[in-house]
Amino acid sequence: MRLFGALEAGGTKFVCGVGTSPEDLKTVRFPTRSPDETIDEAICYFREEAGDALAAVGIGAFGPVDLDPASAHYGHITSTPKAGWQYTDLAGRVRNALQVPVGFDTDVNAAALAETCWGAARDVSSALYLTVGTGIGGGAILNGALLHGMMHPEMGHVRVPHDLAADPFPGICPFHGDCLEGLAAGPAMQARWGQPAATLPPDHPAWALEARYIALALAGFVFTLSPGRIILGGGVMQQAGLFDRIRGELSSVLNGYIRMPQVLTEMDRYVVPPGLGDRAGVLGALALAERAAKS
Amino acid sequence: MRLFGALEAGGTKFVCGVGTSPEDLKTVRFPTRSPDETIDEAICYFREEAGDALAAVGIGAFGPVDLDPASAHYGHITSTPKAGWQYTDLAGRVRNALQVPVGFDTDVNAAALAETCWGAARDVSSALYLTVGTGIGGGAILNGALLHGMMHPEMGHVRVPHDLAADPFPGICPFHGDCLEGLAAGPAMQARWGQPAATLPPDHPAWALEARYIALALAGFVFTLSPGRIILGGGVMQQAGLFDRIRGELSSVLNGYIRMPQVLTEMDRYVVPPGLGDRAGVLGALALAERAAKS
Repeated sequence: MRLFGALEAGGTKFVCGVGTSPEDLKTVRFPTRSPDETIDEAICYFREEAGDALAAVGIGAFGPVDLDPASAHYGHITSTPKAGWQYTDLAGRVRNALQVPVGFDTDVNAAALAETCWGAARDVSSALYLTVGTGIGGGAILNGALLHGMMHPEMGHVRVPHDLAADPFPGICPFHGDCLEGLAAGPAMQARWGQPAATLPPDHPAWALEARYIALALAGFVFTLSPGRIILGGGVMQQAGLFDRIRGELSSVLNGYIRMPQVLTEMDRYVVPPGLGDRAGVLGALALAERAAKS
Repeated sequence: MRLFGALEAGGTKFVCGVGTSPEDLKTVRFPTRSPDETIDEAICYFREEAGDALAAVGIGAFGPVDLDPASAHYGHITSTPKAGWQYTDLAGRVRNALQVPVGFDTDVNAAALAETCWGAARDVSSALYLTVGTGIGGGAILNGALLHGMMHPEMGHVRVPHDLAADPFPGICPFHGDCLEGLAAGPAMQARWGQPAATLPPDHPAWALEARYIALALAGFVFTLSPGRIILGGGVMQQAGLFDRIRGELSSVLNGYIRMPQVLTEMDRYVVPPGLGDRAGVLGALALAERAAKS
């Protein structure tokens, strides 16, 4: 039996899995400490659980990461603000230790891939996955391929219209101030309203504003990528009613210009939560492992 | 000898070409009148110039267009504001009349393809082509494939931050008011400043504002698509000095967050004019014909 290793490398926790498919994937999770400790823990887990049956490992990592196979830093986590993790050769260390093919991509591209293979986008050929939590990040599948260009997307940093009269909060992105992440990620909500997003009641004005910013960004993604489905994950999206608010605002921003049934009459099926819940990340790593084994 | 037919179907003029490569492509141009007259004129040109040697035709068309092969309206120009052209079966009429394979895409996707094959992006695997003229539209190549999703991109309609104190002009997009096209296309410049963009001198404040809006949108495209190169065409881009202004503003908006040499130190080679000049459209149609002949 050939087993795949799946590694969701997050800034807070690592989730490791071993199995042949989403149905039989066994997982463990442990906190993200130093690169040496954390990567070794993952390698030991794959060795113990899979042994010689390990066929490939897939890694979906927090970023930024280097995805250019021609680069000296391919497989590295690069200029991350996370202490100790700058220019860490994550994929190379896993490959060297385990001597199997390693698939490597961003956590959000991995989640987009998993949702396309097995989740909320399995019936469409293109999809956007956006996570709204501690940060905001996006991945996408277009015609079955992960979205890569010069590097990977950094969708949280798009600029959106910001009406300072209605919302004088200046934003907290250290690079861009009031980009989407600076205005609408969890820490921005906490800074603006003085309490964690999860504690803001559903009728708090925070949520109308949040829906507006997310919808303005989503409209930009629709005009730019034209995804067949939009999947919104992350902690902030747990708020009851936020999906409906976002759908309404997105309709309002698009204003009938895109004459496609998905956005004209089927918005409930167009902007959706992850079909795989919080397993999208590790299952995306599984899909990356499957692809690495084939190539 | 096998000849390819190339058709750049614009809202103002059609450009038709016949040849085997960019080097020997003969072209004609004629004004866009009614669908019957204009499409017939193109069909007659291909018949006369290529006869039985015609192997395929490629069409890059003004839009919106239907690119879904499974759709009943595939190959149509759909909900265009251009009088008489709504739901015109452009690709089908050409295919039925000439009985050859027909490649069909948007004018800007075609231009992006031509620039990737033979022009300013021939050394990279991904590129964005944005035209800034009577309207604003974008096409893109990612990993060698044209960007399609639910439909094609409509990049002119992304929203950008609009400081009403600095620029009280409300924008003229009939759908979105102050989207990029509503603020920065040629007609918006004429409406804001009371004279055609081409007559505004290089030191007029119009150009700093124009560069700012274009750069804000480009930053969004970089964060979303991560193109390996950005090509800016269209009438508005003819203004001397606008490229340098846009490069400076784009650096300012990105603010060092994207740690890639293309945008950190090589902006002069990252944001560039079309390598093919005003032939990008018809050469893109040629590239679409070549692809159609192969498939």
